[in-house]
Amino acid sequence: MNKIVIYDSTLRDGAQAQGISFTLEDKLKIVERLDRLGVSYIEAGNPGSNPKDQEFFDRVKKIQFKHAKVIAFGSTRRVNTPVEEDANLRSLLQADTSSVAIFGKSWDFHVTDVLRTTLDENLRMISETVAFLKKNGKEVIYDAEHFFDGYKANPGYAMKTLQAAYDAGADCLCLCDTNGGTFPLDIYEMTAKVVKEFHGTVGIHCHNDNGMGVANSIMAVQAGALQVQGTMNGFGERCGNANLCTIIPNLQLKMGYSCIPEENMKKMTSTARYISEIANVTHDERSPYVGRYAFAHKAGMHADAVNKATEAYEHIDPEAVGNARSFLMSEVAGRSAVLSVINEVDATLTKDSPETKLVLDKLKEMEYEGYQYEGAESSFELVVRKVLGKYHPAFDLREFKVIINEPSIEGINSSAMIKINVDGQSEITASEGDGPVNALDKAVRKALERFYPQISRMKLTDYKVRVLDSTSATAAKVRVLIESTDGEKVWTTVGVSTDIIDASWKALVDSIEYKLIKDKS
Amino acid sequence: MNKIVIYDSTLRDGAQAQGISFTLEDKLKIVERLDRLGVSYIEAGNPGSNPKDQEFFDRVKKIQFKHAKVIAFGSTRRVNTPVEEDANLRSLLQADTSSVAIFGKSWDFHVTDVLRTTLDENLRMISETVAFLKKNGKEVIYDAEHFFDGYKANPGYAMKTLQAAYDAGADCLCLCDTNGGTFPLDIYEMTAKVVKEFHGTVGIHCHNDNGMGVANSIMAVQAGALQVQGTMNGFGERCGNANLCTIIPNLQLKMGYSCIPEENMKKMTSTARYISEIANVTHDERSPYVGRYAFAHKAGMHADAVNKATEAYEHIDPEAVGNARSFLMSEVAGRSAVLSVINEVDATLTKDSPETKLVLDKLKEMEYEGYQYEGAESSFELVVRKVLGKYHPAFDLREFKVIINEPSIEGINSSAMIKINVDGQSEITASEGDGPVNALDKAVRKALERFYPQISRMKLTDYKVRVLDSTSATAAKVRVLIESTDGEKVWTTVGVSTDIIDASWKALVDSIEYKLIKDKS
Repeated sequence: MNKIVIYDSTLRDGAQAQGISFTLEDKLKIVERLDRLGVSYIEAGNPGSNPKDQEFFDRVKKIQFKHAKVIAFGSTRRVNTPVEEDANLRSLLQADTSSVAIFGKSWDFHVTDVLRTTLDENLRMISETVAFLKKNGKEVIYDAEHFFDGYKANPGYAMKTLQAAYDAGADCLCLCDTNGGTFPLDIYEMTAKVVKEFHGTVGIHCHNDNGMGVANSIMAVQAGALQVQGTMNGFGERCGNANLCTIIPNLQLKMGYSCIPEENMKKMTSTARYISEIANVTHDERSPYVGRYAFAHKAGMHADAVNKATEAYEHIDPEAVGNARSFLMSEVAGRSAVLSVINEVDATLTKDSPETKLVLDKLKEMEYEGYQYEGAESSFELVVRKVLGKYHPAFDLREFKVIINEPSIEGINSSAMIKINVDGQSEITASEGDGPVNALDKAVRKALERFYPQISRMKLTDYKVRVLDSTSATAAKVRVLIESTDGEKVWTTVGVSTDIIDASWKALVDSIEYKLIKDKS
Repeated sequence: MNKIVIYDSTLRDGAQAQGISFTLEDKLKIVERLDRLGVSYIEAGNPGSNPKDQEFFDRVKKIQFKHAKVIAFGSTRRVNTPVEEDANLRSLLQADTSSVAIFGKSWDFHVTDVLRTTLDENLRMISETVAFLKKNGKEVIYDAEHFFDGYKANPGYAMKTLQAAYDAGADCLCLCDTNGGTFPLDIYEMTAKVVKEFHGTVGIHCHNDNGMGVANSIMAVQAGALQVQGTMNGFGERCGNANLCTIIPNLQLKMGYSCIPEENMKKMTSTARYISEIANVTHDERSPYVGRYAFAHKAGMHADAVNKATEAYEHIDPEAVGNARSFLMSEVAGRSAVLSVINEVDATLTKDSPETKLVLDKLKEMEYEGYQYEGAESSFELVVRKVLGKYHPAFDLREFKVIINEPSIEGINSSAMIKINVDGQSEITASEGDGPVNALDKAVRKALERFYPQISRMKLTDYKVRVLDSTSATAAKVRVLIESTDGEKVWTTVGVSTDIIDASWKALVDSIEYKLIKDKS
């Protein structure tokens, strides 16, 4: 199997993303996980431009890696500066890594208008920098910044910059689509030309500004590139870098290349999610291979077909990347999608049972009302129980009153009074809160604790509101999703109403009912 | 300039996305915006599988469109069913659109293992269905489901299915990469083969399961496809459909094709954001062309270079798609951005006025609180007025009390009492409503009408709620956006609080204040 070298730049180029900023501890955690995944290189910082990174390289030196080499990143020497006197290059050597990456200019316009020097001086900068690093015993990856834009503008000069790096001993020439605007066929053709000249040493580094960062990387490999640079989850400046979580499965599972040890492919999803967690960004659930929705089927026909043969609507087996198939509950979902929930309640029912039809009819009716059970399977299980006659309410609501005061009284603006009934015994109580829903939530749980002490272990962990048909303004329908936990399990319930208090109440009641049913069984 | 026909399926295939469910009103709004953008076709629903869609098609018939044709979507007739007796096809005709799209099977495995019929019967299903629709006077777009997987498995049969649709009179043969797993070079080669046989009638419909939905669509166009199907923001099942917000600028701005009227390209960003809003999903700020970060520069070196020459790190001019360049964490950028609002209030102030700095400081403080003034510029203008001392409150709130009753009394569950003061005169009144916000909204406007009769012409047209930090459950912060109109202008205001009533109140007050200020000036 042909090897493609995976070069991860999550910690360097990925950290240029809006909203992402890694601490030293974050970086050490991510390096460790990337090594366990099995990438070949981890570009981890720019000691010249970021003094904090020096401490990181001191710490990382003490770690024993199984697969990865850690890379310090820098640039060619400054204009008209002897290479030995360049402070950034000195920092690069101080990082004390066996391999380094440096970028240099390939686009004549960048040389004249951004660096403001001559084309010849730029060639000397490349050549002298690579030679200096080789003399210091480093493996050198040369990043040809803006190579493709440069090649389009002045192909002869762009090739000369590569030649300069190659002649000085660079181990890899990595072609960068820095502005992320080049098209796949162009990448393919230009990479093929470079591969022809510099066989065996070519890499690719793409950005995603035209939405084709992954495809461009793949096309470069098809043209002969042997190293792919990118970031986990596609983190990066502007629209991000080429997404390694997509590229690695594409190359390894679908094209037969070897990128990471075969047994590690199942770690792809958990590694991707872990890195989103550490970066403290919401994981993109639509992302190929590693998103929660990547193998989620909604259309009824699709769900039916996948039940007959998974390849009907799946391009790979989700387990190959440690992900899982799911069927979304929805009006358009067919019988097979809801059957798994029905069987939780009554294992004897089948797709063709009349009860299944009743549940589907109820589902359609509820979705017409604005309910959506995707992500609120606990409420859906209660619907199923009600339809199948397997539901006994844990309590009856007699009445509640919520009062909101402005100005607030002693900092509290809402209070709720509630009266409930459990098996003939009634309880009336009240509670205050920060807003009406908060007050009502506290009051109902206070009233129920006498009958169901386990309620005290339960708490709400998430509360979401969606306005459904927002044109009728404040009388529009709202859908409320509530996530609850008892410390062991997490469940989500839903309520819909024109009134946010009523919608919240319905979701609250479902949440409590679900907890009590699960405790009984 | 060569024309590429843009076929939008946001309302049909896009609605298969996790978490997306459009109401009838949502669909009408989106159709209207897509027409204004200038797409050629809008695939808007499947009347056979979704009865709700029939009402939509009845409503949409009455609308006069500038650019777009609305499409009803369905499938080839059922196995062994005469075409005249097929209920889904009858629904399709009832939608009464001039153009329809139907999908049929191209992959032999799907015919035998999912449809469970013979390869010949499938060809008859395609042929008879297309002929039937043509006989009924329809323009027919034939979607060849799984075409690429089918072609790989059995190229002869896949081509026969296209031939069947073509011979029966199909106006367009659209090749679908239904599982989203095909690679760009394969798409290019297979599309080229189809184009050679069926020149002038070929379209492309890609999914994004391998992260290459956009690239695959582009490659098909390069191979001769003339119609591109996709969805706005790439909404769709699993990893989504090919993203038209990326494809249209790629084709039109960078490859010289004509997709939408040139003057509409600047609407791309606002249209994309509008559709995210209607779908009530968080807009992907990293998305190419239309994301807020698409032209956001973080690296200091990059920002410097872009200041020297924008093309240094930008593949297109952000204004071409109605987007804007930004420099993250840079106050200089901040100043120019808010100055236009400041100059609305005081035209003499400049970027360097001390007042501008005060506004920026206030803006930072408010954003830290959870405010976001994008799309709520009216509230931001009020902030500016307050900072500049150009604000006089239209009324003082003395107190309000909102009471929510369960069970409701005569169908009304909320009532609000309010006392306000205008120039020393006080007014106390009350109102009922469907939920506490609705009651409060009615009460405050009733109280104010005595002093400001023009308030009676004003009404709320949209109300949206976002939960900001949802981990603290029902005490989490919420942001409320309110859109109002007086029949001439439309304006949006924002309020933030841990209490939804309080957040709504703030947005309501801003909305009224803004109206009164604008009437005075």
